[in-house]
Amino acid sequence: MNTRIEFDSIGSLPIPNEAYYGVQSLRAKKNFSLSGEMLHPILIKKLALIKKIAALTNYQEKNLSASIAEAICKASDEIIAGHFQDDFIVDAIQGGAGTSANMNMNEVIAHRASEILGGTKETYELVHPNDHVNCSQSTNDVFPTAGKLTVLELLPQLISTLTSLEKTLERKATEFSNVIKMGRTQLQDAVPTTLGRSFKAYQSAVQRDIQQLTTITSEMYTLNIGATAIGNSINASAGYSATIAKNLAHELKLPLQQADDLYDATQNVDGFVRVSGVVKTAAVTLSKMCHDLRLLSSGPKTGFGEINLPAMQNGSSIMPGKVNPVIPEVVSQVAFQIIGNDLTITMAAESGQLELNPFEPIIFRNLFSSIELLTNAVMTLTDNCIIGITANEAHCRNQVEQSPGIVTALCPLIGYQKASELAKESLQTGRSIRHILLEKNWLSPEKINELLDLEKIAKGIVSSNHVPISIIV
Amino acid sequence: MNTRIEFDSIGSLPIPNEAYYGVQSLRAKKNFSLSGEMLHPILIKKLALIKKIAALTNYQEKNLSASIAEAICKASDEIIAGHFQDDFIVDAIQGGAGTSANMNMNEVIAHRASEILGGTKETYELVHPNDHVNCSQSTNDVFPTAGKLTVLELLPQLISTLTSLEKTLERKATEFSNVIKMGRTQLQDAVPTTLGRSFKAYQSAVQRDIQQLTTITSEMYTLNIGATAIGNSINASAGYSATIAKNLAHELKLPLQQADDLYDATQNVDGFVRVSGVVKTAAVTLSKMCHDLRLLSSGPKTGFGEINLPAMQNGSSIMPGKVNPVIPEVVSQVAFQIIGNDLTITMAAESGQLELNPFEPIIFRNLFSSIELLTNAVMTLTDNCIIGITANEAHCRNQVEQSPGIVTALCPLIGYQKASELAKESLQTGRSIRHILLEKNWLSPEKINELLDLEKIAKGIVSSNHVPISIIV
Amino acid sequence: MNTRIEFDSIGSLPIPNEAYYGVQSLRAKKNFSLSGEMLHPILIKKLALIKKIAALTNYQEKNLSASIAEAICKASDEIIAGHFQDDFIVDAIQGGAGTSANMNMNEVIAHRASEILGGTKETYELVHPNDHVNCSQSTNDVFPTAGKLTVLELLPQLISTLTSLEKTLERKATEFSNVIKMGRTQLQDAVPTTLGRSFKAYQSAVQRDIQQLTTITSEMYTLNIGATAIGNSINASAGYSATIAKNLAHELKLPLQQADDLYDATQNVDGFVRVSGVVKTAAVTLSKMCHDLRLLSSGPKTGFGEINLPAMQNGSSIMPGKVNPVIPEVVSQVAFQIIGNDLTITMAAESGQLELNPFEPIIFRNLFSSIELLTNAVMTLTDNCIIGITANEAHCRNQVEQSPGIVTALCPLIGYQKASELAKESLQTGRSIRHILLEKNWLSPEKINELLDLEKIAKGIVSSNHVPISIIV
Amino acid sequence: MNTRIEFDSIGSLPIPNEAYYGVQSLRAKKNFSLSGEMLHPILIKKLALIKKIAALTNYQEKNLSASIAEAICKASDEIIAGHFQDDFIVDAIQGGAGTSANMNMNEVIAHRASEILGGTKETYELVHPNDHVNCSQSTNDVFPTAGKLTVLELLPQLISTLTSLEKTLERKATEFSNVIKMGRTQLQDAVPTTLGRSFKAYQSAVQRDIQQLTTITSEMYTLNIGATAIGNSINASAGYSATIAKNLAHELKLPLQQADDLYDATQNVDGFVRVSGVVKTAAVTLSKMCHDLRLLSSGPKTGFGEINLPAMQNGSSIMPGKVNPVIPEVVSQVAFQIIGNDLTITMAAESGQLELNPFEPIIFRNLFSSIELLTNAVMTLTDNCIIGITANEAHCRNQVEQSPGIVTALCPLIGYQKASELAKESLQTGRSIRHILLEKNWLSPEKINELLDLEKIAKGIVSSNHVPISIIV
Repeated sequence: MNTRIEFDSIGSLPIPNEAYYGVQSLRAKKNFSLSGEMLHPILIKKLALIKKIAALTNYQEKNLSASIAEAICKASDEIIAGHFQDDFIVDAIQGGAGTSANMNMNEVIAHRASEILGGTKETYELVHPNDHVNCSQSTNDVFPTAGKLTVLELLPQLISTLTSLEKTLERKATEFSNVIKMGRTQLQDAVPTTLGRSFKAYQSAVQRDIQQLTTITSEMYTLNIGATAIGNSINASAGYSATIAKNLAHELKLPLQQADDLYDATQNVDGFVRVSGVVKTAAVTLSKMCHDLRLLSSGPKTGFGEINLPAMQNGSSIMPGKVNPVIPEVVSQVAFQIIGNDLTITMAAESGQLELNPFEPIIFRNLFSSIELLTNAVMTLTDNCIIGITANEAHCRNQVEQSPGIVTALCPLIGYQKASELAKESLQTGRSIRHILLEKNWLSPEKINELLDLEKIAKGIVSSNHVPISIIV
Repeated sequence: MNTRIEFDSIGSLPIPNEAYYGVQSLRAKKNFSLSGEMLHPILIKKLALIKKIAALTNYQEKNLSASIAEAICKASDEIIAGHFQDDFIVDAIQGGAGTSANMNMNEVIAHRASEILGGTKETYELVHPNDHVNCSQSTNDVFPTAGKLTVLELLPQLISTLTSLEKTLERKATEFSNVIKMGRTQLQDAVPTTLGRSFKAYQSAVQRDIQQLTTITSEMYTLNIGATAIGNSINASAGYSATIAKNLAHELKLPLQQADDLYDATQNVDGFVRVSGVVKTAAVTLSKMCHDLRLLSSGPKTGFGEINLPAMQNGSSIMPGKVNPVIPEVVSQVAFQIIGNDLTITMAAESGQLELNPFEPIIFRNLFSSIELLTNAVMTLTDNCIIGITANEAHCRNQVEQSPGIVTALCPLIGYQKASELAKESLQTGRSIRHILLEKNWLSPEKINELLDLEKIAKGIVSSNHVPISIIV
Repeated sequence: MNTRIEFDSIGSLPIPNEAYYGVQSLRAKKNFSLSGEMLHPILIKKLALIKKIAALTNYQEKNLSASIAEAICKASDEIIAGHFQDDFIVDAIQGGAGTSANMNMNEVIAHRASEILGGTKETYELVHPNDHVNCSQSTNDVFPTAGKLTVLELLPQLISTLTSLEKTLERKATEFSNVIKMGRTQLQDAVPTTLGRSFKAYQSAVQRDIQQLTTITSEMYTLNIGATAIGNSINASAGYSATIAKNLAHELKLPLQQADDLYDATQNVDGFVRVSGVVKTAAVTLSKMCHDLRLLSSGPKTGFGEINLPAMQNGSSIMPGKVNPVIPEVVSQVAFQIIGNDLTITMAAESGQLELNPFEPIIFRNLFSSIELLTNAVMTLTDNCIIGITANEAHCRNQVEQSPGIVTALCPLIGYQKASELAKESLQTGRSIRHILLEKNWLSPEKINELLDLEKIAKGIVSSNHVPISIIV
Repeated sequence: MNTRIEFDSIGSLPIPNEAYYGVQSLRAKKNFSLSGEMLHPILIKKLALIKKIAALTNYQEKNLSASIAEAICKASDEIIAGHFQDDFIVDAIQGGAGTSANMNMNEVIAHRASEILGGTKETYELVHPNDHVNCSQSTNDVFPTAGKLTVLELLPQLISTLTSLEKTLERKATEFSNVIKMGRTQLQDAVPTTLGRSFKAYQSAVQRDIQQLTTITSEMYTLNIGATAIGNSINASAGYSATIAKNLAHELKLPLQQADDLYDATQNVDGFVRVSGVVKTAAVTLSKMCHDLRLLSSGPKTGFGEINLPAMQNGSSIMPGKVNPVIPEVVSQVAFQIIGNDLTITMAAESGQLELNPFEPIIFRNLFSSIELLTNAVMTLTDNCIIGITANEAHCRNQVEQSPGIVTALCPLIGYQKASELAKESLQTGRSIRHILLEKNWLSPEKINELLDLEKIAKGIVSSNHVPISIIV
């Protein structure tokens, strides 16, 4: 392998001739050989985009010549188009607050732009990674800005898959609107409901998550680009600093804006904590729903057996015919991961010091991963599970009839005390409430049917006012 | 001790004659002898208030007679006024989804209302805890509603103390606006800033937390009251269910409203998770700020020594004259507690099953505690720390002059490479950048003063456009 | 209220005449008005005990006169006996690394010892809180030592209640050893087992937790007492430093020993993190078991219905006859709390800086609380739940017969493929595996009974070697 | 691409002809398109190893013919040697409790073994994935066993790097044993120590972590292999079940043993929680140490400036000459990740149900990652940071002289009160304690030198007994 020698303030290293990265990238790679996970591809593209818009803005502001700016733009466009992926060699987990990521980008662009201008990768004479590519910038404004732009690309995907889930849940709610089943509180028979109502409740919760994710997106619109090192915009010309955020907004067609307080925006990362919090809450909602699906489909013979999840794969290597709720299981695991990630993000945010939070790399790794994992989990949940759920309608209704839970409906008429005794009798004798009532002759069969109209109870069709208690007993 | 015997479906227990609680409360006390912590006093008051408004609504809807409703109202008012506190005997941590808390309230009110109506505590003949006090209600709608009303009383207190903190930070930002100091990134000398800018950044972050807390408050306005057991409003008359939330809203002068989907609102507790998340983020912001205050005041001789925190107490039992940053330390500890509480809340929410989340008691304990702890922490932070902070102005400026950090300002003129060498020379020789520049004779003293105008750099007064690099060297 | 004026380095404050605490305690109380929770009573006693043993050691080493040492011992003994509880006025959550707790103790003892020597609380002339009571000590060695001694009193209580639980589980395992039931993996019918096996598994897990808790106890034996401020034993005489730990060990009859590296022992708090970790793991085990109990007792008619938990209280304020798994529910809530507490402890430990971790107060609050909550939860779990569990034996066995899960036992004979088809047929037709087999006439009824001997399968009585597959089909 | 059609109980799918995986693997890949992260390479090898030893044991027990067993062994050996890596296509995050991972292995081996026996991948007639490769096994015993074997390969690597770190810290402790510096508690000047003592304390803590990791390793020795589905060893012959763990132990030369209670060992995963807890505690120790390193090296001019970390890379894209503590920063980030991972593991363990914990895949992903990340972080910490640290000895000593912190040494002689006043005077006048003492003429210069012998104080060379206080003043 032919190499060139590159120098930095630490010394020098041989770099493969064909490589577009430089000595600082290589040094970072050696320092941070940790996860083997590279920078997120979208983060790379967003960094390149910022470099491009910064070059254009610097040109407008006469900080860069037309030719250098143009070469930087071209090189950036190539990266955005997916080239040079192997030249981004630094680990996703890195010290230095993202400096290595930023310098990796600066070096690749500088080398490529030099080539474009007719130079070689041997020297930065034509285009310099710091003086030109990084002109008017600091890692401390570029890196968090790229992080926010990445989140802004990932969040809509999550919202979109959640919307698809929500629509599917709505269809299921309609499909199951007449499936009468026992509602359970604390896993004990409570009062009748419909399976449709259960799916409607899931839909309502998902709707709320969609709404919250949509709202929280705006946290990512406020950028510290133009703040450079700590917020005082040192080395960024006034014109650049005033227009860079606007130019980004224009390019991306997003309502981006520069923070009013650039110091605050450079040192505090609470926006990421908030987004993670909302993603986490959505994961909690979904995991609860998936626990429910596993419960409701438990069986086939010794469980609740109210619904059937579509069989997606053999359930067991040893037990023939077993079908497991593998999709809900994986969604809950993703939720556990996201809750863990949220903690990592929280700790990293809490540990920021003075003018900068140097722990943004771990924040980004976890936030990007949380959003993507949830997006993928929601997709498989919708397509490979919810959409194919069927109900065991007869079993559901039969269970309601057998359960003492329906005695609650008699309370307004006979009081809590008497109703308790009735429930006890039903359990001890194994006879249904309806059966016992008929035997007792307290009420006419018509009245009993009216009171124990499962349809009405389950669907919450509330009857007339309470009548005075104890008229009978 | 004279006792009466009370019965429930489990059996009977002797109850002290003077006690207003009943057999179910006592049973719960025995079952849940866990934390020794009672129900939050505000939660008790909110439960009583709901009982009162429910009684009134039931009277309007003809579910309760005037005399019973009136007696319940009177008894509730007495509790709201602070009476019968010792009669609430159940542990804050309890199984049963809050049933014990609700029944403790039902029993106390039933006994007291019976007395008011001329009866005794011996019998529930006049007022029954379930049939009358709990009329049209279930623990499953009453308890979460009381929890939300409690949060709605606690949150404004937190917002108010944060607002006071924010104003104090603003005053400090003004007071310190001319204190030039070195900004630090990653704990290393970066570029100059002002102490005022630091406090302004803290203020900006706190402002954002206030705004977020204000916004999230609305999550608590949506109630499931009227849902009774699982959302189908079983045993609540149509009229009651339709008006109870409005009546609560009217009484409390809050924009409360009944949830559109009562099933969802009964089984999902994501609203509490979200409030906790916002409280947690505020705690993260404050803990980061407090770490900064401890760093900036480190010393007196071997630390940063930029600011002095007011001495609030002797710092040591052994080291004379030592003054420690005790207030920031306690704020960070509160933040650690709140982050832990947030996890507890998250897990409890994730573990909900089917039509109900039975883990609301632990959610409430942690959420109430988080809000109150943060309120108290912010109060002591403002009054016993921030307000009395003073700056070591001369030391701050002197440090800036000695630091190579100011070399960054020369980059646009001499390039990153040359500037690096200058920084190295300063460090190795111990001479200031300004000193070295004057010696080198590259620039006129006037130009040097212009470039190294600390005031301008620190305050971020950006100069004109970049000039072509390398004009000198 | 009559007051005296006391002075410290900050200034002066009026102190109620009857109070034994002093100005530093009162100042701390004002600074840390946070949780309203006082120092743990056992921590107070352990602090007093340390003061007593330190006084004795100082007397032996001629650092204190006999009369002062004796007075300090007497005062300490009074505190250990439970006196002066109201004089410990500082919040459990405090800044200052426990200095306020230590000074509160120093002040109370100094005032009381002065009285004992015939003096008044007006002056520290006879006994001085720092020079005498705190002689040879620093908060930095006294406070963590008291924390460890507290844990050493709390842990055996937890181990003892777990041992009682373990014995109870063992009895239940024997009682249920012939209750044949379906085992479930992923909530789906798997293969038969016995209820006894389930309780045996719980017992085995609890045994392991007991063993781990016993082992981890030794982490608390290593003390930094004698280290004073940072580990160099400044102001402790050589003799004192060499003997204080031994004297404590002798007094408490515990294998306590001074750390080899006192600097390490003063700045690192990993021992507490480890204890918390083991307590947390025990909580995880128990919460999993309690989730199981809730599942197995779900019903009475629409759930698994395999076991009955003892009815401990009315389950519902609205649903008559409902009995809920309130004890398992509260145990899981305690587990959520402990997991949250463990996080708080972890963060506090991670945030230690240089020669001291100033966040021990929040570590102690959470660790003490975790151990006590778990102790109490285990007690109610054993006494109010496990001990009274009964099995629905016929239902359990009947379910097994109906389930296709028993088909697995046929695999070695007919292969996975054929067995899958059999399982499918059973599910589709609703006929039991046994029934279908008999019909198919593949095997003699005797052979079928031998293969589907539920007793043997459930109890894991493995038959002879596998025979070549596919002999029949 | 040429394909073959494979069938399972769900239906059929086309499989690329050259693929060794089968229909179940492909189905799993489609179901769990989540993280894009494959099974850990070591986990794959351990699964293959188990298959090999199981085949041998099955042959010994006459459950498999010689030729089939031999073919399975050969195929397994090829996988262990690193072949067929691209055939393991299932995501690391998967539902189904690892069934997909196990079946992926079963399918690859069955296909490859068929080839070895002269067959094709078109049919499983010669070697069947379930009946032969999985003979006597279940995912539920194979998967957790493979997980434990993986941890047993990863842990020693972590222990080894920690041992190397510990040795390096020891060397540094010796190197810096005479560097006198100010000790700080709560970031405030406390009393003198040596830099050597600080590094010794780090060494002591790391030693403890090594010891704990070594101890906890034994948690992984107890296997549930032979338990098959739920612990009753269904479908495993008695001989196989009795010998498989021993055969694994023999092959791996590890003290592996089968669990006494196989039900417990199949459903409880507390062993993984415990290992994660110990890894987490080690991460906490290291992160605290790294925070210290960042503090001590803060500067170069406006920080503590006591030590210099080796410059590993340019610190900034904008600030020339800046060198940042990038290695300690990345270690802390790894610690945040590990703490988050530990939470994920804890939640997954807590969510296990009945006879199985279906969430082992997420437990493994996080535990493997935690151990590897920490191993890599320790490696870079040792090699790229600790080893090259240098001390600013003169600066350290000078700071001690200027600090009032040394006044503590005078307490035994002049009392806490007087010493406090001295400290105050020093701070107000800016004169050193030594200077003031000389002026005051209280003590002879010799006595002052003796009392303020920094060497002795810093090294904790405790002088003779305390003398009566107040002899002078």
